[in-house]
Amino acid sequence: MNEYAPTPRDRFSFGLWTIGFRGGDPFGAATRAELDPVEAVHRLADLGAWGITFHDDDLIPFGSDGAERSRVLSRFRAVLEKTGVVVPMVTTNLFSHPVFKDGALTANDRDVRRFALRKMLRNVELAAELGAKTFVAWGGREGSETDAGKDVRAALDRYKEGVDLVCSFIRDRGYDLRIALEPKPNEPRGDILLPTVGHALAFIDRLEHPEMVGVNPEVGHEQMAGLNYVHGIAQALWAGKLFHLDLNGQHGIKYDQDLRFGAGDLKSAFFLVDLLESAGYQGPRHFDFKPPRTEDANGVWVSAAGCMRNYLILKERAAAFRSDPRVKEALAASRVPELSTPTLGDGETCDDLLAETDFDVDQAAARGMHYERLDQLALEHLMGVRS
Amino acid sequence: MNEYAPTPRDRFSFGLWTIGFRGGDPFGAATRAELDPVEAVHRLADLGAWGITFHDDDLIPFGSDGAERSRVLSRFRAVLEKTGVVVPMVTTNLFSHPVFKDGALTANDRDVRRFALRKMLRNVELAAELGAKTFVAWGGREGSETDAGKDVRAALDRYKEGVDLVCSFIRDRGYDLRIALEPKPNEPRGDILLPTVGHALAFIDRLEHPEMVGVNPEVGHEQMAGLNYVHGIAQALWAGKLFHLDLNGQHGIKYDQDLRFGAGDLKSAFFLVDLLESAGYQGPRHFDFKPPRTEDANGVWVSAAGCMRNYLILKERAAAFRSDPRVKEALAASRVPELSTPTLGDGETCDDLLAETDFDVDQAAARGMHYERLDQLALEHLMGVRS
Amino acid sequence: MNEYAPTPRDRFSFGLWTIGFRGGDPFGAATRAELDPVEAVHRLADLGAWGITFHDDDLIPFGSDGAERSRVLSRFRAVLEKTGVVVPMVTTNLFSHPVFKDGALTANDRDVRRFALRKMLRNVELAAELGAKTFVAWGGREGSETDAGKDVRAALDRYKEGVDLVCSFIRDRGYDLRIALEPKPNEPRGDILLPTVGHALAFIDRLEHPEMVGVNPEVGHEQMAGLNYVHGIAQALWAGKLFHLDLNGQHGIKYDQDLRFGAGDLKSAFFLVDLLESAGYQGPRHFDFKPPRTEDANGVWVSAAGCMRNYLILKERAAAFRSDPRVKEALAASRVPELSTPTLGDGETCDDLLAETDFDVDQAAARGMHYERLDQLALEHLMGVRS
Amino acid sequence: MNEYAPTPRDRFSFGLWTIGFRGGDPFGAATRAELDPVEAVHRLADLGAWGITFHDDDLIPFGSDGAERSRVLSRFRAVLEKTGVVVPMVTTNLFSHPVFKDGALTANDRDVRRFALRKMLRNVELAAELGAKTFVAWGGREGSETDAGKDVRAALDRYKEGVDLVCSFIRDRGYDLRIALEPKPNEPRGDILLPTVGHALAFIDRLEHPEMVGVNPEVGHEQMAGLNYVHGIAQALWAGKLFHLDLNGQHGIKYDQDLRFGAGDLKSAFFLVDLLESAGYQGPRHFDFKPPRTEDANGVWVSAAGCMRNYLILKERAAAFRSDPRVKEALAASRVPELSTPTLGDGETCDDLLAETDFDVDQAAARGMHYERLDQLALEHLMGVRS
Repeated sequence: MNEYAPTPRDRFSFGLWTIGFRGGDPFGAATRAELDPVEAVHRLADLGAWGITFHDDDLIPFGSDGAERSRVLSRFRAVLEKTGVVVPMVTTNLFSHPVFKDGALTANDRDVRRFALRKMLRNVELAAELGAKTFVAWGGREGSETDAGKDVRAALDRYKEGVDLVCSFIRDRGYDLRIALEPKPNEPRGDILLPTVGHALAFIDRLEHPEMVGVNPEVGHEQMAGLNYVHGIAQALWAGKLFHLDLNGQHGIKYDQDLRFGAGDLKSAFFLVDLLESAGYQGPRHFDFKPPRTEDANGVWVSAAGCMRNYLILKERAAAFRSDPRVKEALAASRVPELSTPTLGDGETCDDLLAETDFDVDQAAARGMHYERLDQLALEHLMGVRS
Repeated sequence: MNEYAPTPRDRFSFGLWTIGFRGGDPFGAATRAELDPVEAVHRLADLGAWGITFHDDDLIPFGSDGAERSRVLSRFRAVLEKTGVVVPMVTTNLFSHPVFKDGALTANDRDVRRFALRKMLRNVELAAELGAKTFVAWGGREGSETDAGKDVRAALDRYKEGVDLVCSFIRDRGYDLRIALEPKPNEPRGDILLPTVGHALAFIDRLEHPEMVGVNPEVGHEQMAGLNYVHGIAQALWAGKLFHLDLNGQHGIKYDQDLRFGAGDLKSAFFLVDLLESAGYQGPRHFDFKPPRTEDANGVWVSAAGCMRNYLILKERAAAFRSDPRVKEALAASRVPELSTPTLGDGETCDDLLAETDFDVDQAAARGMHYERLDQLALEHLMGVRS
Repeated sequence: MNEYAPTPRDRFSFGLWTIGFRGGDPFGAATRAELDPVEAVHRLADLGAWGITFHDDDLIPFGSDGAERSRVLSRFRAVLEKTGVVVPMVTTNLFSHPVFKDGALTANDRDVRRFALRKMLRNVELAAELGAKTFVAWGGREGSETDAGKDVRAALDRYKEGVDLVCSFIRDRGYDLRIALEPKPNEPRGDILLPTVGHALAFIDRLEHPEMVGVNPEVGHEQMAGLNYVHGIAQALWAGKLFHLDLNGQHGIKYDQDLRFGAGDLKSAFFLVDLLESAGYQGPRHFDFKPPRTEDANGVWVSAAGCMRNYLILKERAAAFRSDPRVKEALAASRVPELSTPTLGDGETCDDLLAETDFDVDQAAARGMHYERLDQLALEHLMGVRS
Repeated sequence: MNEYAPTPRDRFSFGLWTIGFRGGDPFGAATRAELDPVEAVHRLADLGAWGITFHDDDLIPFGSDGAERSRVLSRFRAVLEKTGVVVPMVTTNLFSHPVFKDGALTANDRDVRRFALRKMLRNVELAAELGAKTFVAWGGREGSETDAGKDVRAALDRYKEGVDLVCSFIRDRGYDLRIALEPKPNEPRGDILLPTVGHALAFIDRLEHPEMVGVNPEVGHEQMAGLNYVHGIAQALWAGKLFHLDLNGQHGIKYDQDLRFGAGDLKSAFFLVDLLESAGYQGPRHFDFKPPRTEDANGVWVSAAGCMRNYLILKERAAAFRSDPRVKEALAASRVPELSTPTLGDGETCDDLLAETDFDVDQAAARGMHYERLDQLALEHLMGVRS
């Protein structure tokens, strides 16, 4: 099992809310006891993880006074120092408290929006203080159940106002922090604004400081809309906007499952790791999963370890896939590399292109793409078939 | 029935391929005879439609020589002139012929990409010649069934290269023509690039001439990903990118149904018309539907008439909704107008905001949003309940 | 508004857990205070409802002792008597307590199964005591997240054993009570056993006393699998098994939304009411909805009133649809009544049928079905178009 | 590669329409030439397949006269004899010709229903003649796009009448043939009757000769409704009704993809093979896939070979999973075997059960199910991790 043992160099990080998930769901109460953040850090360090992330309220209970906050932070810093675990990302809980029931940055109530912004700004300060480089913003309650109740264009104005404000705050304070928006199509709202990677990217392009803002796509969130997560990540990379990502598993279009990484669509997970590794993605490999409610405390750590182990297994398989001469030959047969050649020649004009007459459409139409062979080779590498 | 009789002022347009759909599907042969485009224009004019649109191959069969092309176009121009029907939009068929089986602008084969671009450029000339203002581009085959076979980042490079080229061609020729990209998540490919309105908007922002390119969202395409079409249209409007749209119906996440407008999610259709009309959308109301295979030729026209009639019924209902004093009161109770007020005051800074301490979080959390009343009023206006 | 005012004759019933829903969800805490069951009954009576239903734990908190139980029941009976509200159905909570995290009748742990059965049997006694005629069983936790962990065939054996036992208990005690199984595809488990109306019907056929067991289909549950709820209800009626039903709303395939009746797929709700009323369904019109978390206590009652009002509006519209001479003509044109004529003549044999040679396949194929006209008429009746 | 080489003992069969699929789809023309059935049989035999299946029209074009039919059949029998390939199943095309546009056994038009029955009966004769043991009936057009147009209860009456008639015909002729109904939720109809394994099983229970009729579940069809195929197969096995099955792949809820087996949800495919093999399923392993439209003729056979190879790889992995001592220990830790123990003891009564008082609910609730470990072991066996 040593070959798949994680180390901090793998840059695996976990949300405090993931391993700390107590198992409550819409139809049932919590099944596990609270997890002390200090124990969480120790256990993660023992498992080989590199980082821990959190929502403000995960660490410092909502409504804590200054003394409580100091006490909590001082214990937390101590364990970070002791274990070497880092805090690469911090995020704000703008969805659990009833005050956010209609959203935070896009709540119809202006005073709620102002409260939400204050909560974010204070959390930005904490994030910077702890050395985080990424500030994730999931607008889980920015949405609606009825189209009559939310003026979406006004909501996008307010969303932009809010994110612009946070950016200007970060700049004013000179923090080394970037924002990553996390899209989700629905749940807990009937429809959530910025439902996919695409919508978030398009929104970012209209901000005051688009260079400071990227995306934090989650496997399950895109798959809840039936979208190809690998394609979404590729478009985010293409746009230079993959600032962070949330790895987990999902079985298709249904409620948000947050399964451990690898436990959902395995083939897609293989191609994801293949893409991240071959694209040279340098950010954290962050797991945002929920150990199933059926597990006890021990099962939580089995599940967390499985996330990392599956990533490493898939990384090994993807590397073998890419280095297999049969695969190289198959990629060539499918003309995959040819897509990197510009369609027009150097200096070629539309008139040059239009003048071309020697294309044999029927002959071109008859060529096979040989994708079945290529896909089968990928599948066999994934399954570790060695013959 | 007169009150819902369409006129050209309503700017209703139909694709030639919609009323001309012969009823073939993956499991069955065509059930209807071919429709002569000239008859199509006459019938649409009789029904009160304003415009007709087409793919190049709908009008001029693939592979026609120059003489055939001239003959077809001359007959077509004559009927347009006679009836006053206009051609507001033209689009290119880059998906039916086997040569496009792996895509057009993003086909792995470079010569196929070049052929596709030639086909588009020639169709741009035709579009301009017929006075169209919008050139729709649906990349229905730009996608894949296996992630091994398509380098998505290279594909987006080629997609951009292609659209940039068409833009430069339009500019060089001085045509008054804008491009509208049509997103779709899947079918006929397993996954299609630019799967949603959001992904297309984000792509556009990275083009050479983003101002020339917008989106053409289709009701059913967004709903095939479980997304809220009204939200998508609102984000496109917010981005200044709603250049055109495709109205039809869909029963949730399944194969592309292309039902007549109004026949799918009725409540969403109500809110859509409400948004388009209240936002002052000036573009065509274009129907991209497929009369069900069970219909005979007469049923095709019943179905087409139903599309327009449903739009006009919903327009009337939306207007009544907006002018009802109970609705105005309910909107205020839900604080919908308050979302248009900026979150920060004029000249207010982050420090000002952070200094605020008099927010009563529990009191704010206790406020009801009154969305159920508002939504019920919308539903009753939709159903024409008059008491 | 009087024309849509509900009365007990309409047989509208509500779950205590619906109007009592406090607004907690997977990402947020409760937003509303607890509702006293006595107040619930009063309010429902005022609104014109006929019945109230509950899970054992809704009324009598889990773990109550005998004295507490007696006190609660005595208050509850008093308000029922005072208001005339009846208890047509009772159900058992076998999903909220952590002990049921792996299911109840199909939990891997035998002692949990035994505990679940005891809870059910005691609740059967309570149901009978309160005069309920239907005992609903929703096996919300009977399922799995991994196919390795649940032997489905063994689980079905245990499920059958459990339901058979409850049936024999009812028979032994001489109660006038029937069981209605409630299917759901997923949530809170990754996959739930008996996921649809069909699976439940097929299971029932293999019980010891199939005549005592039917189904309780919920609008949203079938729609979460993309299935046509009206078709499901029709098959349940056809099988003589529609013992009860749960009315609510859902926007397609996503998490379980439990919207108020009418607020989801409106057209499907119209056809549902049309079917129930024309089929002479005599059971309760039971609402299993969750007033959105954004509502305050007042909004809960607006939402509840909306459920009943929408049913009555749709009932009126369906009646108008069925009595419209244009509709009768359209149904005939679509040959809808012809489907009730047996395919074979009286006494006709296979050989007779095979001997027939005068069928003109092309002529038959050319006939239109005229469904678009019929569907448009339905839509217009739904929208109250009067011309 | 030899270790995964198929032989006739593996009982792999293919539909003639699968390897013969020419690549047409709703948006594109065929990309491949017709495949001669005789060549198909030769190629399948060479690949190690055991059987071939077909729709009547796949082999004998619709409308062929007796001479053509004889000629075709004689060539086909000759190649079967030569290669040893068998015909384990035959099915009827009741969906491609326009005459079936509103269905076959449940078409509103009585003469169409009669024609459909004649076509089925003649095909039953052919099936028996060729030694087939299973007669599959997929009612792909039995459904509707509007609930107004189809009286579902009448349709189920007619469906039953039709299947009962075919059963009586088989009995009268003394054929050794069973019928297997194939469910599908939608496509090509908006909603199809008997949409899932469950609905079909429930329907069968109401036939005249239920013992003669079972189901033919298809991987992709159940997954198009988001249902767990392995659970569906388990319920069919539990009911003694798994007469046949269709293996392929699907990427979640979308149009019917018919990918090669293994290319969709790989983990589910692993658990499926595990179930079939451990349950002792003796029927054909039948592939109902469509080689993607991008493939040329050679790719068709690569794809077909991949179906069989993936089954054999998964069979090996499932066997290793079941024989691994760590897995046995993990299954015990998850109490999987305990579910096979009846919940009540031998002779135990309800009163005995109710008298039990020593259950510690909190202690039971605290037990972990250890599913994450078990699932991870399954995943690692699937991926061939050997450490």
